[in-house]
Amino acid sequence: MELKDYIRIQENFPREGISFKDISPLLENPKAFAETIDRMKEIAEKWSPDLIVGPESRGFIFAAPLAIKMNKGFLMARKAGKLPGKALSVTYDLEYGRATLEIPAFAVNKGTRIVIVDDLLATGGTLQALEKLFAEAGAEVVGIITAIELTSLKGRDNLKAPYETLISFPR
Amino acid sequence: MELKDYIRIQENFPREGISFKDISPLLENPKAFAETIDRMKEIAEKWSPDLIVGPESRGFIFAAPLAIKMNKGFLMARKAGKLPGKALSVTYDLEYGRATLEIPAFAVNKGTRIVIVDDLLATGGTLQALEKLFAEAGAEVVGIITAIELTSLKGRDNLKAPYETLISFPR
Repeated sequence: MELKDYIRIQENFPREGISFKDISPLLENPKAFAETIDRMKEIAEKWSPDLIVGPESRGFIFAAPLAIKMNKGFLMARKAGKLPGKALSVTYDLEYGRATLEIPAFAVNKGTRIVIVDDLLATGGTLQALEKLFAEAGAEVVGIITAIELTSLKGRDNLKAPYETLISFPR
Repeated sequence: MELKDYIRIQENFPREGISFKDISPLLENPKAFAETIDRMKEIAEKWSPDLIVGPESRGFIFAAPLAIKMNKGFLMARKAGKLPGKALSVTYDLEYGRATLEIPAFAVNKGTRIVIVDDLLATGGTLQALEKLFAEAGAEVVGIITAIELTSLKGRDNLKAPYETLISFPR
């Protein structure tokens, strides 16, 4: 099954020059979505994680089913101000402006083995920021998976943890 | 297994007088999270859906694994401006301000049987708006499930479709 066939390309969205990768057809097709999660499971099992992390919001769509399939816990990495109680946070640069991600202060222990799952790797800013956040928390990011990689942006070169993807586009 | 034991209460968040229901402990516990999805599956099966819908962003966490478990497709109901291409949208009132949810224009067909899944039912504004959106699209909302219901707000009285919950709090 060629998962790439289920990604719809929308040119010039959200702005001129960007070739947007729409995952909606993949998610709407039960076989393609199930195959996506199965392949992620095959990859993640090699890394023996304790906890599967998904960044808000499209990371939730892949990380939550993967956690269920692997019989592991799921942790939300949320946008700023949404978590009650004490939180650990990391702020990072975007092309325009900045973003912040947060996890509950007591969500991970020293040595917790983390796999991070997101929809797409571009320059890797979000995933790099999460690596930093978990390092500060004493946890170990043992692997990162995205459904899609934009290879010409070389985001994987910015990641410390082993990284794998299911679908590649140049940009 | 008492799923309620895995919901952490944070008083006065995000503001004075609100008793916030934190689902993080439930998601982090593999057994509690799996049990949540299994119970949702038991409920949803009665309604024979074609498609499972989750509103952004916490709806994704329950709707996506449920879709995988049931071997159905998953559809994101997204916040405004995030979907490429033609979209159907609905705008609704919140306590403070307004919000908009969107689905791709060609995501559903006439008669598509929809189950909507979200984390929490309060007054039901989001779910009511989605019922309206799918009615306009010609699809049929055959059922709605939330992990948590705040019963004293009587949100379920505002819903047309059959509604079930797993965990109840008065407020």
